[in-house]
Amino acid sequence: MKELKEKIERDGLAVGTGILKVDSFLNHQIDVEFLEKVGENFALRFKDCKIDKILTVEASGIAVACIAAKNLDYPKVLFAKKTEPNTMVEDCYLSEVVSFTKKNKSLIRIAKQYLKAGEKVLILDDFMAHGEAALGMVDLVEQAGAEVAGIGIVIEKKFQGGGDKIRKAGYKLESLAMIKEIKDGKVEFC
Amino acid sequence: MKELKEKIERDGLAVGTGILKVDSFLNHQIDVEFLEKVGENFALRFKDCKIDKILTVEASGIAVACIAAKNLDYPKVLFAKKTEPNTMVEDCYLSEVVSFTKKNKSLIRIAKQYLKAGEKVLILDDFMAHGEAALGMVDLVEQAGAEVAGIGIVIEKKFQGGGDKIRKAGYKLESLAMIKEIKDGKVEFC
Repeated sequence: MKELKEKIERDGLAVGTGILKVDSFLNHQIDVEFLEKVGENFALRFKDCKIDKILTVEASGIAVACIAAKNLDYPKVLFAKKTEPNTMVEDCYLSEVVSFTKKNKSLIRIAKQYLKAGEKVLILDDFMAHGEAALGMVDLVEQAGAEVAGIGIVIEKKFQGGGDKIRKAGYKLESLAMIKEIKDGKVEFC
Repeated sequence: MKELKEKIERDGLAVGTGILKVDSFLNHQIDVEFLEKVGENFALRFKDCKIDKILTVEASGIAVACIAAKNLDYPKVLFAKKTEPNTMVEDCYLSEVVSFTKKNKSLIRIAKQYLKAGEKVLILDDFMAHGEAALGMVDLVEQAGAEVAGIGIVIEKKFQGGGDKIRKAGYKLESLAMIKEIKDGKVEFC
């Protein structure tokens, strides 16, 4: 997606050799007008898939998923939680995820009642690095007996291998921007 | 907002005497099509306010803020973070918040570069109980020398006093549904 690459080049901040900060439009401040284009692009790429539900994980993924939902005939958006609030007392599906940016392990969870066997699920997220979050969501979907219709990622850091792992496993993965390398404060796209 | 009250009555779950679970459309699963109406309603209530930016706090607030932004000519949405990722190295404004649902204290934070002195800020959030999260966001806005244009809440649990505290302090607070009491599994609106 051309506008996304331009936006990353203009507003993103490459840190060291692994981190790209896009806090100005995606991960802290959100440019909703721009995200509408991201949502349209996802809708185009998944137009041939039947989608009953969108699954994402808090926090930034929520913005991406909600805005994309509009372009996909409003399937419900379900966001996996990273902590257990005391209002979440139901039976949950759990999956362990290692966070690349936070350097910790955590459990992501969804209440069983919101994902049913046979549903076709589009997984959407802001970033993919080692693929841990996406694989955790795939695990949640499959625990429910539901089906992964596809996985859409705004920015894939291809050099960290998550995307290749997921493609090799046979899932339809669409990344709107793929990064080959981050080096000397510069981002090189695939 | 009539449709919201109906939705709460139909899909909400009152727990004990203090908790209303709306996980089916707002706090876990998100009904984006319905939230569009919530966004339109906020836009109507704040149509006379100049708004440069929307501030919310992760996680559910992000959905509300992003969808409302569309109806308010796309001000940027900034979401306060509850944890410090290792990609957030800049100077931050911090404020301490007690969570009613999670029964803990936490620091919410925004990077200084995304909120500037003089900006008019609309604070949006999903719930208001004791008003801690909203007051934390007011504190962040005022630390930045910016100005609170208004505060919009989807569901205010009026009996927990947060809203009255904020109105008394002189802020323009608009709640789309106000709950007088939660008792015996029933919600009574004001």
